[in-house]
Amino acid sequence: MMRAIISEAKWLTLTASVTITLTLISAYAVKRKWNRLTSKIAELEASLKSCSDKCASERQGRIRAQQALRKELTLSQPNPETCFPMTPIGVVRSCFSTRNGTPRQPLLVPLARASLVFNTTRVPPPSLEGLTDYSHCWILYVFHLNTDLDKLWKHPSHSGFKAKVRVPRLKGGRMGVFATRSPHRPCPIGLTVAKVEAVQGNMILLSGVDLVDGTPVLDVKPYLPYCDSIQEATVPNWLMEDNLLSVASVRFSEDFTSALENCWKMAERSSLYASPGEFQSLIKQVLSWDIRSVSQRIRPHDTLLKKENNELLANTSNVDEYQDETTSVHDREQNALNSNEVIYQLILEGLDVSYRIDHNGNVDVEKVSIPTVFDNTANSCNYLTWKDKLR
Amino acid sequence: MMRAIISEAKWLTLTASVTITLTLISAYAVKRKWNRLTSKIAELEASLKSCSDKCASERQGRIRAQQALRKELTLSQPNPETCFPMTPIGVVRSCFSTRNGTPRQPLLVPLARASLVFNTTRVPPPSLEGLTDYSHCWILYVFHLNTDLDKLWKHPSHSGFKAKVRVPRLKGGRMGVFATRSPHRPCPIGLTVAKVEAVQGNMILLSGVDLVDGTPVLDVKPYLPYCDSIQEATVPNWLMEDNLLSVASVRFSEDFTSALENCWKMAERSSLYASPGEFQSLIKQVLSWDIRSVSQRIRPHDTLLKKENNELLANTSNVDEYQDETTSVHDREQNALNSNEVIYQLILEGLDVSYRIDHNGNVDVEKVSIPTVFDNTANSCNYLTWKDKLR
Repeated sequence: MMRAIISEAKWLTLTASVTITLTLISAYAVKRKWNRLTSKIAELEASLKSCSDKCASERQGRIRAQQALRKELTLSQPNPETCFPMTPIGVVRSCFSTRNGTPRQPLLVPLARASLVFNTTRVPPPSLEGLTDYSHCWILYVFHLNTDLDKLWKHPSHSGFKAKVRVPRLKGGRMGVFATRSPHRPCPIGLTVAKVEAVQGNMILLSGVDLVDGTPVLDVKPYLPYCDSIQEATVPNWLMEDNLLSVASVRFSEDFTSALENCWKMAERSSLYASPGEFQSLIKQVLSWDIRSVSQRIRPHDTLLKKENNELLANTSNVDEYQDETTSVHDREQNALNSNEVIYQLILEGLDVSYRIDHNGNVDVEKVSIPTVFDNTANSCNYLTWKDKLR
Repeated sequence: MMRAIISEAKWLTLTASVTITLTLISAYAVKRKWNRLTSKIAELEASLKSCSDKCASERQGRIRAQQALRKELTLSQPNPETCFPMTPIGVVRSCFSTRNGTPRQPLLVPLARASLVFNTTRVPPPSLEGLTDYSHCWILYVFHLNTDLDKLWKHPSHSGFKAKVRVPRLKGGRMGVFATRSPHRPCPIGLTVAKVEAVQGNMILLSGVDLVDGTPVLDVKPYLPYCDSIQEATVPNWLMEDNLLSVASVRFSEDFTSALENCWKMAERSSLYASPGEFQSLIKQVLSWDIRSVSQRIRPHDTLLKKENNELLANTSNVDEYQDETTSVHDREQNALNSNEVIYQLILEGLDVSYRIDHNGNVDVEKVSIPTVFDNTANSCNYLTWKDKLR
């Protein structure tokens, strides 16, 4: 019996040890797995958080993009009630390189030539057929030198403009903008006429132009005198005066002709003129009208104006005749007796023509030169292009 | 010793039982927590998946919105080299309610009146000051009845247009579109002139108009005869012929005057005319020119044309004179002897005027009535508005 009890005790001890060992082992295993689960949970929770954050930021990005899109669509919505996007069909390649010197009126300078060069996709050559049957045509263009063109893209109610402008011929008086041909209008579309010289391919050669080089063209229409010419139309008295400001005379210096011959070799490549002689006639015609701005005419010495002269040449000047705020009757009476000392510049077909004008209105054309920056590669045609087509 | 062994055995048994019980309990607890952890893990994994899916869809939404925005910005990018958005400054309120009947030429119908009504924000009244000093003015407008205006918003290279159009006066011949005044041009801007009668607030009263009611106006410019009138301008021979198609006579039926008196009470509210008598004079002037389309003139019985007549009246017709493809010399020779049976319609200031025309060109105006749909509330002014300002 003692042996049984002892073996029983041994068995119990063994069982207990085994049980305890197994328990400890499984407790260890459980703890390990527990840790793994916990850490997995922590991982998952971290991932979930980062995913949520990412989701929130994508959502924010989406909402922002959609808001911007909605805003853009509202602005650019093709709503015929509010806006018509007009894309130019071509560009003017004019003898007038800058606004300064460009005539104030069409047909004033008969020798003033320009090629309208059309985008061939938009204006295939057949679309110009028949235009030469007409002696003149209208050109609708954009006043691209306006400095406030960005207003066109703003909401119309936010695009302010001056209701009244100074009228050059009214000696400073103001008129409603729609009673003038000022460029500074809500829809900056210009209207002018020119003589049709020839048509070739996707180009029209015009003369008597009053357009600056680089002007974007919106449309060309034939001039129909039975519609467009109203002889009995009347204008206010102050416009009736002959105030085109013609000069007294235009003389060329002795060296001028040879200076022009020197320039001609290079200028010829892109010139719309047959010879230096013809070009000189152009200069004479252009300078027959006092092309100086009102300010220049009155205060030629003003350093501000000298700056303006350069700005005008660089076409960066804000001030055109309709915006000129600097004149007064007093200034006009102070008509510069010293105006003869000022050298004025005129840029035609890229050539720099300098001249003086005395207080009697006599113009002395001094010289002509090729400026440092002279790029006549842009011009796609010259006189030879047109020679055979001219009538 | 037996007692010790037995108590030892009892203790061992007790310990063993306790151990086993505790083990079972903790195993149970562990399993429960295990399950919770596992299910939490499953939950987290599910959340993570759904979060990822959501994230992916937000991302997709964001990318799509950004692509659309980029596309929109590219289209509407204010690039002055490609596009100038022109927003009309006002609208034409014309006596011509539909395109059918609108004269083909300005000043042809002197009694044809219209009010240009301007958006006060864009055209404050001071901007019109001085316009009455001019007898005539240009109106630049949009050919808003063109059915392809949506092309303006497409990339210019994709907006096709017909290079050549049929010219009504050339009896079917085709000319380049820029050699015509066809509305179907790349930049659908119309140019016309009218007589300035009066200016009041933000409105201009014009006469001699050839504009349809509802025409959007882009610009108004004073007519300057020294710029705009070119008497020596020439046009091709076929245009020189007097082919405005004047009719032989215009007669009114016996009942006409009383019919007009009946309509007048209601029509008066928005009419630009002083009296039924003046309105009748307008009708006479309008019908003095054969206003029927070329097709109608040739084949008045054609059911297609009857449909076209209605379409023209409803302004839904695609076919204007420049697009009319249905005429031929043969048809013309088959000049309808039965044209007298067709009743034509003309809508002026919303009033329905019906007339016949015989093959000799005699017009018989039958009656005038107020159509079922007659809305004259849109018109913001009438004759009384202008009465005191007329010169």
